[in-house]
This record gives sequence, C-alpha cells and structure tokens, in this order.
Amino acid sequence: MDIERGGTSRGVERFMFFSDAVFAIAITLLVIDLRVPTLELTDAELADSLRGIARRVFAYVLSFAVVGIYWHAHWRGFLALRRVDARLMTLNLLLLGTIAFIPFPTALIGEYGDRPLAVAVYAVSLSLAGVLGPLTWLHAERSGLNAPAMSVAQARVAAIRAFALPAVMLASLALLPFAPTSLVEMVWFSMVPIQIVLSRVYR
Amino acid sequence: MDIERGGTSRGVERFMFFSDAVFAIAITLLVIDLRVPTLELTDAELADSLRGIARRVFAYVLSFAVVGIYWHAHWRGFLALRRVDARLMTLNLLLLGTIAFIPFPTALIGEYGDRPLAVAVYAVSLSLAGVLGPLTWLHAERSGLNAPAMSVAQARVAAIRAFALPAVMLASLALLPFAPTSLVEMVWFSMVPIQIVLSRVYR
Amino acid sequence: MDIERGGTSRGVERFMFFSDAVFAIAITLLVIDLRVPTLELTDAELADSLRGIARRVFAYVLSFAVVGIYWHAHWRGFLALRRVDARLMTLNLLLLGTIAFIPFPTALIGEYGDRPLAVAVYAVSLSLAGVLGPLTWLHAERSGLNAPAMSVAQARVAAIRAFALPAVMLASLALLPFAPTSLVEMVWFSMVPIQIVLSRVYR
Amino acid sequence: MDIERGGTSRGVERFMFFSDAVFAIAITLLVIDLRVPTLELTDAELADSLRGIARRVFAYVLSFAVVGIYWHAHWRGFLALRRVDARLMTLNLLLLGTIAFIPFPTALIGEYGDRPLAVAVYAVSLSLAGVLGPLTWLHAERSGLNAPAMSVAQARVAAIRAFALPAVMLASLALLPFAPTSLVEMVWFSMVPIQIVLSRVYR
Repeated sequence: MDIERGGTSRGVERFMFFSDAVFAIAITLLVIDLRVPTLELTDAELADSLRGIARRVFAYVLSFAVVGIYWHAHWRGFLALRRVDARLMTLNLLLLGTIAFIPFPTALIGEYGDRPLAVAVYAVSLSLAGVLGPLTWLHAERSGLNAPAMSVAQARVAAIRAFALPAVMLASLALLPFAPTSLVEMVWFSMVPIQIVLSRVYR
Repeated sequence: MDIERGGTSRGVERFMFFSDAVFAIAITLLVIDLRVPTLELTDAELADSLRGIARRVFAYVLSFAVVGIYWHAHWRGFLALRRVDARLMTLNLLLLGTIAFIPFPTALIGEYGDRPLAVAVYAVSLSLAGVLGPLTWLHAERSGLNAPAMSVAQARVAAIRAFALPAVMLASLALLPFAPTSLVEMVWFSMVPIQIVLSRVYR
Repeated sequence: MDIERGGTSRGVERFMFFSDAVFAIAITLLVIDLRVPTLELTDAELADSLRGIARRVFAYVLSFAVVGIYWHAHWRGFLALRRVDARLMTLNLLLLGTIAFIPFPTALIGEYGDRPLAVAVYAVSLSLAGVLGPLTWLHAERSGLNAPAMSVAQARVAAIRAFALPAVMLASLALLPFAPTSLVEMVWFSMVPIQIVLSRVYR
Repeated sequence: MDIERGGTSRGVERFMFFSDAVFAIAITLLVIDLRVPTLELTDAELADSLRGIARRVFAYVLSFAVVGIYWHAHWRGFLALRRVDARLMTLNLLLLGTIAFIPFPTALIGEYGDRPLAVAVYAVSLSLAGVLGPLTWLHAERSGLNAPAMSVAQARVAAIRAFALPAVMLASLALLPFAPTSLVEMVWFSMVPIQIVLSRVYR
C-alpha cells in the first residue's frame, strides 16, 4: 500500500484528474434542468415559457459561478501537491460528493427559488462543498503533502478567502424569515464580483 | 497565490484538462434531447415518429459541428500556452459556462426550429460562446501567456476567422422577419464547410 | 496556425484526451435509458417491470461492448501518433459525433428492438462510427502522422479487423425481411467473442 | 498490434485516463435520479416531497461511497502499472461496464428501497463491480504488468480487503427473507467506516 514510494507522481496526477473530471461533469450537468417545453405551444406561449425559464437560467448561472470558484480554488490549492495520503483521498472524495450533488439543489431553486425551504437547502448544500474544499486543502498544507510554496500569512489569507463564500451563504439564511428570497439570492450572487475583487487586492 | 512560480506546468495542464472535459461533456450531452418515444407505437407510427425526430438530429449535427469548431479553435489557440493568470481563468470559465449551456438552445431549436424566437435564442447563445473564445485567446496573446509562436499577421487572420462564425450567426438574424427559419439555419450550416475551406486557404 | 512546430506534443495529448473523454461520456450515458418505473408498483408488478427492462439491459451491454471495442481500436491505433493535422482533426470530430450519437439508437432498440426499422437505424448508426474509426486511423498512417510502428502486413490486418464489425452489422440487415430481429441482434453480439479470438490469433 | 513496444507509456496513460473518466462520470450521474418535483406545490407539500426524497439521497450517498471506494482501489492498484495487455483491457472494460451501470440500481433502491427484489438487484450489481475490480488487478500483478512494488503478504491483504465489500453485500442478502430491507442497507453502509479503519490498521 506504500503510497509514498513508487508511482507517486502518477498517483498525484490521477488524484487531480479525477477531481477535475467530477467538477467538469457536475458543472456541465447543471444545464440538464433547463428543460424545453415539449407541448405544441403558440409563439406567445413559447415566449411566456421562455420567460418562465429565466429563473432556472439564473440558478444555472449562479451555480456555475459557485462551482467555477470552487474549482479554481481546488486548482490553486493543489498546484504544489507532491503526495497523496489516505486522509486526503477521503476528504477529497467527500468534497467531490458534495460537488456532484449540486445539480440537485440547483434544480430545486430553479423550480422553487421563491420558497425559503428550497433556498435553505441550496445554501446548506453549497456551503458544505464550500467548507470541505478548504478543509481538504488545509490537511494537505499541514501534513506536508503540498510543497511549502506559501508563507503562513498567504495561507491565512487563502483560508479566510475560501471560507468567506460558505460563511456568507449560511449567514444570509438569517434573513429568510424577514426578507424576500430574491434578496437572499442576490446577496450570494454579489459574492462573485467580491471574490474577483478580493483576489486582485491580495495579489 | 503566486501562480507564476512553482507548479506552473501543472496549472496549465489542469486548465487545459478542465476545459477539454467541459467541451467533451457538453458536446456529448447534445444527444440527450434525442428522446425515444415510449408509447407503444405501430410500425408506421414509429417511422413517422423517427421522421419527426429528423429536425432534432439536424440540431444535434449543427451544434456538434459548432462546438467541435469552437473546441478546435481552443485547442489551436492554446497549443503554446505557458502561464495562466486570474483573468484568463475568469474569461475561460465564462467561455465554458456558455459552452455548457449549448445543450439547452440545441434542444430548443430541435423542438421549435420553425419559430423565430427559438432561432434567435440559439443564435445569440452560440454567438456568445463564439465571441468569448477568441476574447479569451486574445488575452493570452496580449499578456504574453502564450509563447510568441505567431506573427502579427497570423494572429490577425486567426482572430478574424474566429469571429466570423458568431458574426454570421448574428447577422443572419436580420433575415428572420423576411425569410423562413430553415433558410437562416442553412446559412449557419454552410459555415462549417466555409471554415474548413478557409483553414486550407490560409495555411 | 503552424501545428507542426511548437506545442506538438501538447496538441497530440489534447487530441487523445478529448477523444477519450467523448468515448467515456458516451459509453457512460448509455445507462441513462435504463429508467426506473416511478409508479407505485406492487412486488409482482416490480418484478414484471424489471423483466421488461431486460431488453434495455441487453441494448446497454451490446452498445457498451461495441463502443468499448471502438475505443480499444482508437487507443491501439494512436499509440504512436506524433502529429495532428487539420484533416485528422476533422475526421476524428466526425468519428466522435457518431460515437456521441450512440445512446440514441441504443435507447431505440432498448424500446423497439423487435422492429426492423429500429434495428436498421441502430446498425447504420453503429456502422457509421465503425467505418469512420479506421478511416481516421488510415489517414494518420498514410500521412505519416503515426510513427512507423507497423509493417504493411500488420496495417492490412488491422484495417480488415476494424472494418469487420461494421461490415457484419450492415450485411446482417439483409436478414431483416426473413429472420426475427432477435436473430440479427444475436449475430452482432457474436462479434464480441469473435473480435477477442481474432485478436489472439493474429498476435 | 505490438502493444509492448513503442507508445507503452502513452497506452498506460490512456488506460488510466479512460478508466478515471468512466468512474468520474458514473459517480456524478448518480445525482440524476434526484429529480425535483415539477408540480406547483404548497410549502407544506414541498417539505413533504423533500422528506420523500431522503431515501434517494441515502441511495446517492451509499453508491457514491461504494464507487469512491472502488475508484480508490483502482487508483491504488495501478499506481505501478507499466504495461497493458489485451486481457487487462478486456477485464477493465468489463469492470467499467459494471461501474457505468451503477446509476440504474441506485435509482432502483432510491425508489423501491423497501422491496427485497430491488435490494437484491442492487447488491448483485455492485458486487459484480466489486469482484471485477480485484480480478483486473490480480491479472496485472500475476502477469507482471504492474512493477513489483508489493510483497506477497501485502498483495494478499489487498486482495482480501478488496473482496470484503462484495462478500459482505452478497452475504447480507441471506438476511432479506427475515430482516427489514433497511437493516440490510445499514449493514452495507457500515462497510464504509470499516474500510477506513481497516486501511489504517494494515498500514
């Protein structure tokens, strides 16, 4: 079972590859919920139906942005990975399990985005993935699986930045009893430009 | 966050890999809309039903050709990529988001290819991907992320060629109020052999 | 556009990778048609329903075997690929388009495997892929894209072996007016062990 | 056909890659069965409907864990693969065929997890994959396709560990006539922590 010796670089490569593939498939499956109406519609009904799909397209764009940010973080976090151990494998599989799950809550808010329950399920699901990502990375940093490419200060910034998205998502749920669900969703969406700005500030 | 140092070649590799996977999944998911009728049909009804599917098969072939051309351009454009920066990542994720979206407008014109609205949604969606592709590539060329393998003249030809497909698609929408939708779709389809001929002329 | 110089090995790698991914997705999507009945069934009805699914499982196994053989041939044929040219790209995209299409005829014979029309559509679709595969490979051999790893005799055997499967599939359609469809399907299925035996004899 | 000479390392790479892709797609397609109800539901009905989905989520988590363990075993077993022969290819394609099949029995127990028949179909399907995995690996070990990285004792432990999961799954079916199906499913689920503990004990 000696993972450390022999075949290490191949092991790291397949670890990356498998993770990339699951991210890529999950992000591409998001489109599956954008179903085309199959009844014979008039032109006006078709236009109506496409307007009705706008919410699903919003859900697609939001989830694509979030999964894209998560993948980018995975990409950045493991640029310097040298070894894989059993715990990293387990944590990463847990992470991939939550990533592969995302098409379901995406379909849910695509259909029921105006219901607090659907919004809460979505936020919890995506936050779970958002927390497991940096946990997996922290294990690699602490156990010396990553080459020491980061200073302590850089690592701290990276961790804070990574936890910010799930933290905001979960915190925003406190607004659910008072505010319309669309406001809560807008708060999440605003995270995307904030992430981009943050990444420039800290660079 | 220092992407330039350490792990660069792995970063470039994963950038390619993730892009290839999203293209491959999106192009393969196009078939999902070719649903088999599940009612118990007579032989004559089955033949009718398969004739009715011809339009969807046309949509499949058209979208496969367009995504294939886009992937080929991505492949060619990043043969000499040496580094990845944050803006390239963002532009490429936007591109992949529009690629992963394509199964939806494909299903739309497979079902409603005779409606101007569906044709317009399709043309705008595919043009968006068609514009983001060369934009992503131009950023890589201008920021020195690509190794300087191209002369200025070659780069100009490449950019013109890349923008040609979305330009024709959008321009053809001007025909929609006057011409049948099938004519507009034929104009797009004719782009495929034109691309192939152009690529030989310029080589 | 100079594909020959600079970045060649990356170009070959992405060519392989993209092809592998489309094969892998198409072969995995075959399962999509194995839909679970969602009505509330009694135990006896569920058993009946699963027996009714047997034909779809047969279609799954048959298509998996055929796509597996095609992928194995692609794998073997391009072990020694050194360069990619525009025509190889076009031929390979045509091949991948027919591979990605296979879940549709598979679903068709899963549902209507007892109808000559469905059997013919299936045989023509899979034969198209079966002919494009060796055509793509022959172009690589003749244009010196593959390293010269094969003697002329070996290349001839490889080509004959590759065309055998589509040839038998198309020839078997001559039986359709006289024989039950299940016999025709059995003829195809018998190709799988024959391929395996042939591959041992010629080695 | 000479697989041993020329292009060996590329052949091994594509063998890995194709396997990883099929595992990744199958594990990500598991989510497809988590369908969102599309009727216009009240808040209370939506909550009910989501509770009804709990069983499917259980099926998703269970299958994700099992496929994850199988992939991890494949990853570990072929870290030292040096060559690919025709029999390895055939065995591996059989394995991938059973892996790609898993979304179907998963959907089945998601819908009919309380029926002995569905539970039996699930257990047999996943055990088939669970047996083919170590068989494929044993062929590689015995035929010298893997570099000799393991002692005989290590190989024995690895084989026992790999067969444990399908053995327990099949054995648990003996409980079906006496015990509720949920107990049988719990026995399987308990395998996940047992595998993790075992992997630490033996390391």
